[in-house]
Formats: sequence, structure tokens, C-alpha cells
Amino acid sequence: VWSVFGVGHAIIAGDALENLAQRVLLDLGTPQAIRAAETLAEATARMIAGQAADLAFESSLDVTFEDCLAMEADKTGALLSCACSIGAILAGAPDRTVGSLAAFGLHLGLAYQAIDDLLGIWGRPHVTGKPVASDIRQRKKSLPVVAVLDSGTDGGRRLASLLSIGVLTDDLVAEATSLIEGAGGRDRALCEAELNIRLAEEALEQASVPDPVRARFADLAEFVTARDL
Amino acid sequence: VWSVFGVGHAIIAGDALENLAQRVLLDLGTPQAIRAAETLAEATARMIAGQAADLAFESSLDVTFEDCLAMEADKTGALLSCACSIGAILAGAPDRTVGSLAAFGLHLGLAYQAIDDLLGIWGRPHVTGKPVASDIRQRKKSLPVVAVLDSGTDGGRRLASLLSIGVLTDDLVAEATSLIEGAGGRDRALCEAELNIRLAEEALEQASVPDPVRARFADLAEFVTARDL
Repeated sequence: VWSVFGVGHAIIAGDALENLAQRVLLDLGTPQAIRAAETLAEATARMIAGQAADLAFESSLDVTFEDCLAMEADKTGALLSCACSIGAILAGAPDRTVGSLAAFGLHLGLAYQAIDDLLGIWGRPHVTGKPVASDIRQRKKSLPVVAVLDSGTDGGRRLASLLSIGVLTDDLVAEATSLIEGAGGRDRALCEAELNIRLAEEALEQASVPDPVRARFADLAEFVTARDL
Repeated sequence: VWSVFGVGHAIIAGDALENLAQRVLLDLGTPQAIRAAETLAEATARMIAGQAADLAFESSLDVTFEDCLAMEADKTGALLSCACSIGAILAGAPDRTVGSLAAFGLHLGLAYQAIDDLLGIWGRPHVTGKPVASDIRQRKKSLPVVAVLDSGTDGGRRLASLLSIGVLTDDLVAEATSLIEGAGGRDRALCEAELNIRLAEEALEQASVPDPVRARFADLAEFVTARDL
């Protein structure tokens, strides 16, 4: 949406969708619907905290791999966790089922975000709609970047000094990109994506849902993670 | 907030405050609190619609004075209407009291917005934090602008042609500003502000609230409308 209609309209469209979801739940007004509204509001609070951390990290070089994972669990994990479990809440499913679907969504979100972080550096502009290595230009502390920054190696120190330069020319961006790849940042993010896809699959196995429902969640996982790397 | 910390942090801070308000109401969980949560969500929907219209108007010259008033009733009126009446809802006040306070807030919001529109053109940059005639540079269809654009006069046609120019130089912005003032746009917006301050006062008279409460609402009206023009 932001790429086609601009950032202002995209933000407003997102606000409108979140607001519509809350109004649908409040209109229903059943105890389950109110619990779902609370869950959505709590998940939204976590997304907001994650997005605030993501923004703050842009102007910091002191971000660990764990900081980044915690930020992504809030920013994206909470969104998919809520999306995957709110239907079960609304249907009055047992807490265990809600919990398994929430865990499935959390790990799916972390996998999605790890892949998004890879695309933010190595994605092709005509697919992502963003410039080459967009996340490096924006000094985002995404997983591949912090994997190297936080490594305590010469590569990490070199990357920190590159990201401190006032204006990042295309050459400097290219140098940072190959430095991150050479120092294992890309592999570390790929590992994180694969780990979370596996954890999502395990959580889905645990969920007491009918097989056709499980199959549709599995399709969703496939759809979310099979992005054009 | 946006002027000190940047637009990204300001948007996130606004999201966090709205989210906190909803969570406080949902946590309370009483029937009145759920009704207050619904009212807040409906008001937010109107603010979103108003903001979307405001954005869309920037790229249009075909905006009437009534379009602008309707947009401002959504964008700002709904906010202050909700803010002034939600306490009465939460306290279980009669519908008539809620209605009077909602009307007070709506007119207060329209007055505030009319003054904000004046400041967007004639405000002093060190007070508003925005450049001189910021709203003209951004081609905002605020009240003083549409009062002239929508007048069917030569001044209106000249303003439309000025606002169609690709790059607005400082000279063109200054020309547009004095054209709007000369054609009565400033006076029309001032009139609208004064009318709505009066209507807000009348609505507050009608509200069955104890005198000290009425006095505090009157102070609020004073605070909101006594801005440095």
C-alpha cells in the first residue's frame, strides 16, 4: 500500500483495519468477543513497543542479537500470534488450544520477520518495492546486521564503523552488504528462519484442532514463509 | 512530539496512547466501560475517515467549504466530542447529559480546528514549529483556502491556478497568502471559530452537570481556543 499510494494513506489504512477489527468485536459484545478484543489490544500494545524499539535501534550500534529477537517477537510475533489464536478465543476453545495456536503464530511471525530481514538486504527491488539493501541505508538493526555487529569480531567492528558514516554511498552500502554476508550474518538469519518454521510446525502438531483446520494453518505457514529470496 | 522526536516516533506515541485508553476500558470490563470503549472506537473511526479525507483533499481543487467542515467535524470534532463525553458515559450519566457534553466537544473541536487552520497559514513559525504558510506549501484544503477556492470569484480562480503550479516558490506562497486574506478567507475562518465557540458555550449551558464541573469544561474551552494567533 505504501509503495502504491504513499506512506500517509498506508498508515491511515492500517489504522482503519485495526479499528474495524476492534469495532466488530465490541459490536458482538459476548464475553468471548470482549476477551478477543482484549487480546487484540494487548497484541497491538506489543506491536507498538516492537515498532518503537525498531525505530530506536536505527540510531544505536549497541543492539544485541537477543535485543533484536525480542523486538521482532513484539513487532511481528505478536501480530501473527494474535491472528492465529483470536478465532479460537472467539469460538470459546480451551486455553491449551488457544496457547498452541498462539505459539504457532509467534514462531511463524519470527520466521516471517527473519525472511523479511534477509529481503531487506538481499531482496530484489522489483519484488520488494524497496531500493537495494534498503535496510542498510536506513541503518536498521535487523538480524543479519546485529548477528555481525554483536559478534565481537573484527568484522563486527568494521561494520560498526561503516554504519557510523554520515552519508552511506552505494559503494559503502555494497561493502557493508558483502561484509555481513562474509561474516555469517545472512546464514545466521536463515538459521533463525528455519528454526522458527520448525517450532511453528511443532506447535501446530500440539494444537487440538480438526485435521482440515490444521491443514489450512499449514498452508498459511507455507504462504507466509515461501517468499522469493 | 513530531517536531522534537520526529514523525515516526510521534505516530507510534499516538498509537500507544489510543491503545492504552482502550486497554484501560477493556480491563474495567463494566457495561459502562464497554460502552465507553465502543464510543472511543467509533470516534477513532471518524478521526481516521477525516484524516483520510484531509489527505485526499491535498491533491484536489474541487473541495467545498461544506466538504471541509465535514472533514474537520470527523478529524477533530469527533476527538474532542469523545474526550468531553466519555467520562459521563463511564459514570453512567443520562443520555441527555452525554449528548450535551458531546455537542460541547464537537463545537470546541471545530473551533480549535478553525484556529489551527488560521495558524497553518498565518501562525508564527517559532510558535507553531512549522514553516511560514505551511498549509499552503502542503496544498492543504483548510477553511481559509476553501472559503476562497469555493467562492466562484476571480480570486478563487486565481488561487486555484496558483495551487496548480508544480513547485510553489516563496513568492508564490506569499501571493497565495495575501490573495486568501484579501478575498476574505481569513475572516471566514475566524467567523467559523467564533460561531463554534458560541455553540460550544450553549451546549455546555444545557448540560446537567454540577457548576464546578461546568467551570472546568469552560476552562478547557478557554485553553483550547485561546491560542496565539
